[in-house]
Amino acid sequence: MKTIYFITSNKGKLQEAKSKFSELDINIIQKDLGYPEIQADSLEEVAMFGANHIKNHFNKPFMLEDAGLFIDALNGFPGVFSAYVYKSIGLSGVLELLKNKSDRKAHFRSVYAFVEPAKKPLLFIGECHGVISDKELGDQGFGYDPIFIPQGSSRTFAQMQTNEKNNLSHRGDSLNKFIDYFKNI
Amino acid sequence: MKTIYFITSNKGKLQEAKSKFSELDINIIQKDLGYPEIQADSLEEVAMFGANHIKNHFNKPFMLEDAGLFIDALNGFPGVFSAYVYKSIGLSGVLELLKNKSDRKAHFRSVYAFVEPAKKPLLFIGECHGVISDKELGDQGFGYDPIFIPQGSSRTFAQMQTNEKNNLSHRGDSLNKFIDYFKNI
Repeated sequence: MKTIYFITSNKGKLQEAKSKFSELDINIIQKDLGYPEIQADSLEEVAMFGANHIKNHFNKPFMLEDAGLFIDALNGFPGVFSAYVYKSIGLSGVLELLKNKSDRKAHFRSVYAFVEPAKKPLLFIGECHGVISDKELGDQGFGYDPIFIPQGSSRTFAQMQTNEKNNLSHRGDSLNKFIDYFKNI
Repeated sequence: MKTIYFITSNKGKLQEAKSKFSELDINIIQKDLGYPEIQADSLEEVAMFGANHIKNHFNKPFMLEDAGLFIDALNGFPGVFSAYVYKSIGLSGVLELLKNKSDRKAHFRSVYAFVEPAKKPLLFIGECHGVISDKELGDQGFGYDPIFIPQGSSRTFAQMQTNEKNNLSHRGDSLNKFIDYFKNI
């Protein structure tokens, strides 16, 4: 059985990946190594830099993931800095910035990097488009879930059960592409 | 005459450093190498990471600088992400976030890192305390200057001439400490 180490401190991400990978003969093991996240314009650059950093001192197959929320009317803010913005100004700050904006379009992105020893990192990218709600709704999930309504839905991610959210989400999308890669090799 | 390479793309920073260092027998030369800026909680970590990165492939004395604006009522936002926040939501976004806040306290910080071959990076830290104005005022300077009023003044940095600003500013402060270091060795 193949093993892939998931470089993350996030138990939610770990569970989701474990459950998705269980359909393949692949075992996912958490490895909370930590790595530098750079201030870049794209998640791809952040993930690539992190992957190349870990690659230099960890010689086993591993994966990592970075995600962000990009709001059209705010020029993509909070983007690659979503985690920091969440911690500092929070959901109320983001809603404040959008108070007088009629354009509520936004999308989540998720980038998985996968590295095997002596190979270049592979990236799997997922997206979920939707709008930002007028107020916080729901208590499921985490992060920006209470203010994001995915396309085709009338409820926020935080008003959905985990399974329903994972079927629609950016991270479900990138993870599906990751799984497809293994199905096709 | 000693030469120090300033790793920056910012001509304004370069000019300021050149003029300050002219009192010593030290020549400042711009070197726009670029380096990864990490998503860290402090400017010190960002500067140290960048300095250690450059140190690995540039074997001459060099310096770099990182700065940020920390707003008390926003838990230090935009902090180490000041440049990104300026580009995305801009000054109007920051003022929007503070609209209903009575606490307008903020401070600028500047961190210079200086590295000589085979030595550990040295950090010189400068600060400037003040408040965020209610609206943008003045057209001098750059970045957050139009909304920052330093302690003891009734005008924003953008309403001051360069010399007056440099005497009060965080970057003037860190640069003075840097100069003092050379005067005392």
